[in-house]
Amino acid sequence: MVKWLPRDLKGWRHFVIDQGYLATESAGRQVRLRKAGCTTSLTFKVGRGSHREEREIKLSPKQFAALWPGTAGRRLRKVRYEIPWDSVMIEIDIYRGRHAGLVVAEVEFPNTASCRKFMAPWWFGREVTGEKRYSNVRLALK
Amino acid sequence: MVKWLPRDLKGWRHFVIDQGYLATESAGRQVRLRKAGCTTSLTFKVGRGSHREEREIKLSPKQFAALWPGTAGRRLRKVRYEIPWDSVMIEIDIYRGRHAGLVVAEVEFPNTASCRKFMAPWWFGREVTGEKRYSNVRLALK
Repeated sequence: MVKWLPRDLKGWRHFVIDQGYLATESAGRQVRLRKAGCTTSLTFKVGRGSHREEREIKLSPKQFAALWPGTAGRRLRKVRYEIPWDSVMIEIDIYRGRHAGLVVAEVEFPNTASCRKFMAPWWFGREVTGEKRYSNVRLALK
Repeated sequence: MVKWLPRDLKGWRHFVIDQGYLATESAGRQVRLRKAGCTTSLTFKVGRGSHREEREIKLSPKQFAALWPGTAGRRLRKVRYEIPWDSVMIEIDIYRGRHAGLVVAEVEFPNTASCRKFMAPWWFGREVTGEKRYSNVRLALK
């Protein structure tokens, strides 16, 4: 979670993400469609934590357009800012629509050591890693 | 269900179908991958009966190969024969692997009238329309 947003955020690389879910199961199994800027993709995920498996393919605009209506009622929109920080990238997601007001920062680490070494910027709020209510599937379905 | 197979079936157009499910929900919501002959596709389905919605895209071999491992343990294989009959097409699916022995014929009608008019060939067995245990999702998951 982010408690304060740097005022000059607009200067950073950012793009709108529209995503929706064709189908989701328990155990994190899901098929997600995403349009991030001009890039359209389909992602399959299964498992949680260290047992996570993720498979992504790029879709042509035509392929995406054919499947997207299947996600009606299971979508969310957010603006993503990408901010380089030390040797990692901080992704800040500013949610739109019915989740407006929610702002979440995410950092992916290549290994446990770099995760442990990471010093969060002061404007980070409390950690929400693993909190299901902030999972994008949950937000999109509710 | 088919109780008897015409001896000269091999002469008809047929191809191997491998299909697997990335994710399935109740209410018939599912994302299916299929390789039929050389054609690879992804199909999204939701709803049942007359409220069925179906969206299909062709996948490149590379797209298919990237997603297919996600269907491990949720697959089935069958050989499909396509037999023109009156003004319709009879599809006969001969299941392989752990469902070997199961043979199902399927006919899709453009409207209710043509369905009512249809005279099934004598080698058709009992009708299994709507029987969940013969749905491909069920067969693939069990």
